[in-house]
Order: sequence, then C-alpha cells, then structure tokens
Amino acid sequence: MPDTPKCLVVVGVGLIGGSIALAARSCGRNWRVVGVARSEASRQRVLKSSVVAEATTDLAAAAQRADVLIACTPVSEVARTLLTAARHCSAETLLTDAGSTKRQIVADVEGGLAGKSAAPAFVGSHPLAGDHRSGPESARADLLADRLVIVTPSGRTPTGVADRACAFWESLGAESRQMAPAEHDAALARTSHLPHLVAAAVAAATPTDALPVTATGWRDTTRVAAGPPALWRDILLANRGDVVAAIESVEGALSEFRQALVDRDADRIEQLLEQGRRRREAVGD
Amino acid sequence: MPDTPKCLVVVGVGLIGGSIALAARSCGRNWRVVGVARSEASRQRVLKSSVVAEATTDLAAAAQRADVLIACTPVSEVARTLLTAARHCSAETLLTDAGSTKRQIVADVEGGLAGKSAAPAFVGSHPLAGDHRSGPESARADLLADRLVIVTPSGRTPTGVADRACAFWESLGAESRQMAPAEHDAALARTSHLPHLVAAAVAAATPTDALPVTATGWRDTTRVAAGPPALWRDILLANRGDVVAAIESVEGALSEFRQALVDRDADRIEQLLEQGRRRREAVGD
Repeated sequence: MPDTPKCLVVVGVGLIGGSIALAARSCGRNWRVVGVARSEASRQRVLKSSVVAEATTDLAAAAQRADVLIACTPVSEVARTLLTAARHCSAETLLTDAGSTKRQIVADVEGGLAGKSAAPAFVGSHPLAGDHRSGPESARADLLADRLVIVTPSGRTPTGVADRACAFWESLGAESRQMAPAEHDAALARTSHLPHLVAAAVAAATPTDALPVTATGWRDTTRVAAGPPALWRDILLANRGDVVAAIESVEGALSEFRQALVDRDADRIEQLLEQGRRRREAVGD
Repeated sequence: MPDTPKCLVVVGVGLIGGSIALAARSCGRNWRVVGVARSEASRQRVLKSSVVAEATTDLAAAAQRADVLIACTPVSEVARTLLTAARHCSAETLLTDAGSTKRQIVADVEGGLAGKSAAPAFVGSHPLAGDHRSGPESARADLLADRLVIVTPSGRTPTGVADRACAFWESLGAESRQMAPAEHDAALARTSHLPHLVAAAVAAATPTDALPVTATGWRDTTRVAAGPPALWRDILLANRGDVVAAIESVEGALSEFRQALVDRDADRIEQLLEQGRRRREAVGD
C-alpha cells in the first residue's frame, strides 16, 4: 500500500461509476476517490448516496489531481469528457472509460490527443457489469467482482498502458482481457446490444392485457429492457453497423422458426431449439 | 383435514409434477400422492428423488384410486394420458393437467369423453411456474407458491368443476384465474412461447467466439433457452397459429429498430426502447 494516497477521479457517478468508486475505496489500496457530476443537483445526489466522500462539478480541477481518471458518462459524452480532462491532467495520468462501445470513442480520443506533447496515456475499457438498475443508489462495491473488463488497446496505444489499465481493474477484483476496439464492438453487438434490443422488442410486442399472465420466461427474457432508454439509444447508435448485422442474424433465426412452424416441421423446430440450448448451456447461469 | 387420506395421482413426475407432489405432501391436507412414471427406469429415478413415496408405471391401477389426477406429461401426451385414465377412474375423480397449451388438449379430452356415461370431470390447467431446469431432482415444494395457475373451462365444462380445480391449486399455495382455452393460448403465445423461442434464437445467433464476453443482459435474455428442446417443440407446435402471429409481431418490432438505426433516427430508437421499458416495468422483477 503506498504511503501517499493516489487520486482516482470518476466522471459520471451512476451505477457503474459509483460501483467503481465503492470498489476502489474498499480494495485495500490507498485511493482517494473524487466524483465529478455534471450539475449541482447531480453532485448532491451523489453525495447523498455516500458512494464517494468528495464530489465536484469542476472536471478541470479534479483532472489536475488525477492519477487515474475514468469517464463513466453516457457513451456519447465519453470522448469529449476525456479530451477536456486531458487538457488539465499530467502526462502520468491514466485516462480510460467504462463505455459499452469502443471503436468510435477510441478513435475520437486518440484523434484529439494526437500530436499533443505531454498528453496523458489513454486506453479504452468496458466493464461487463451492470444491470437494469441505474443511478448511484444502485451502486455496489462488488458489482465488478469476478466480472470481465475488456481493455481495448489500438495500434496507437503506448506500450504498457493497456497492462496498466488491466492491473487497475484487477485491483478492484475484476478479471481483464485485451481486445482490439473493432473486435470488441462486433462481439458486444451480439452479446449485449442485440439482447437489449430484443428484450425491448419482446416487451413492446406484448399486449397490455397479457401482462398479468407473464411468468419466469418473459421476466428473464425482457429484464434488461428496463434499462435507461437514452443511454441505450446512444450505445446502439454508436455501434449501429454491428448492431444492424446482429439484428439481421436474429431475424434470420426467427424466420427459420416461423417457417418450420408453418411447415409443421417438428425435427427442424427441435434442431433450432437444440442449437439455442447448447449455446446457452456453454455459458452457465 | 379429512380423516381418510385422499389420493392425488401425478402422471409425469418431472419438475412440475414433482413440485405439485411435494406441495401436496406439505400443504397440511391429508393427501396420499402416487406418481405414475412411463418406464421402470423413470420410476426408479422418481423414487430416488424422494418427491413421492409411491410410484408406479401402471396408470390404470393408479387412476382407479385417484380423487384428483393431474397429467404433467409433455403436451403431446396429455390428452391420451387423461383419456386412458378416464376409463379407469370414478365419476367423482377430478381430471386436469399442467400443459402449457390448452386449446388442443381441451378439445381432444372433451371430444374423447363426450357421450361417455359416468365420465370423470375434466378441466384444463396451466401453472405459470417452472424454470429452465427439468426432472424430479429440480422439484421444489414452493415452486407454485404465489404463482398463477390458469384454469380453462370451456362451454362443455360441467358446473363447479373449474371452481373445484381452482380450490385444489389454491390449497397448494398458488393463485388461480379462469380463462377460455383459446384466450389462454393467445396470451401465452406472447408471454411464454415467444420469449422461449426468441431466447433460443438469440443464443443460437451468438457466435461461439463471442460467448466469453457475455454478461448479465445476454444471460437473462437467453436463460429459458436452456429448457428441454423436445418439450418446447411440442408446445410450439400445439400453439403454432398464435406463436406464428407472435413471431410476426416481434419481427415487426425488430424491423422498426433496424430501420431506425439505418436512418440514424435517434428519437425513434429512444421511443422504441421507451415502449419496451414501460411494458417491462409494469410487470416487476
């Protein structure tokens, strides 16, 4: 444990940012955590939730003190947040984020930092944690425990920076894995963005008068649809190419199911269900 | 509590049948529960699971003793099971089932019993309980607790029989609600059969190399896809008209999402997500 506390700045203290703050405060390292809120009302809400002891609306002042700064804002604000912070923090600061899409964010931040002397080190991150709740009140110190954080170095990431980010996430109890930004976005379109959109589509397609006769299957399948629409709108738009391809793949699977039912093709229906079952069982509960 | 035990016969002692048996044995009524298995191997498995103390492969002999007989077999075998049982049980026996579809089962059983003198009373039931596990080892005495059981009287159901079935389910801790068989199937196509099929489609459409980067959203959305393919094949086929209509409605919703993404129509995407969120939040966790 270092003698002098290190400063962790979390910009955007909601479910993810709040959980990172709580994990840092309880992980046994000597972190001083500063939350950055976008408004005074939001700053008050963050302080009331007790996930941080110190919160400010002054990103520049917080960035000046940061050893590590993480943007946990909606994805559409991540690049702007990090580029603003970069003008005020030191060359030793590690900048990263918690955005659900990576290609655009990484390109925008690296583009903005290119050619700047003494620019801080940046690499993108995406913690595969979170649920359908939101806000600092839902934050938990163990949200990241044993969860995977994907760190996305690009060809422009300085040597050692991705490893430094991985070590940071692991110190909070998470596991880490490195992937290229484009590879991340293609995979997450299938494993996160599509499931969200499908959950919303199934929920929206359920007639109101059928809602009283829902059971476990509907509840599980649609659960993530309760997530914040504005956040997910930005995620889907930031990864629209991969998400459209993912929608097309599930449209193909649904169309096969529909045709097999129209044809009363029992073997084909069982085959399609069996494909889904095998894929699902490979993952675990 | 009656002085002499009443006899409950459960045909098909898997997750649902086993849970009904356990609930009957622990509900404070004086039930003697007899499990009927389709093979000696299955009978041994049922006895080993301890969900019933008595199990047989002889449906006719068990039916002769039944005060209540419930078919918990795959939906494709329910009508045949009940019509066989009906030839051996008394006119006072209540026959029902736990099948996930109702229209075809009710029509087949009522057709088979029509004109028979001293035929037992029959009404269809569907407990909205169960999960992606299967087999008597997964049975739990509280699986039905506070769950809804839909009882489906038709125009041919004798007076009082649906109420008698509701009282039986409520004595096991469930809630009950009566709906016509066709109304049941139309609603469940949306709230159970479609979610299952969509979960399987999303799981099957996920490339194997993306499986390590799944998180809560994918796991929730695809969970029911782990259910037994042969059982679900029969359910989907037995309700194919309503299920095809349900697939078409979710295909419509997905196509709207896809088009809004292609058009970069942020307002429309948010609107679609908001529709899903509202519908989902109306149900609760």
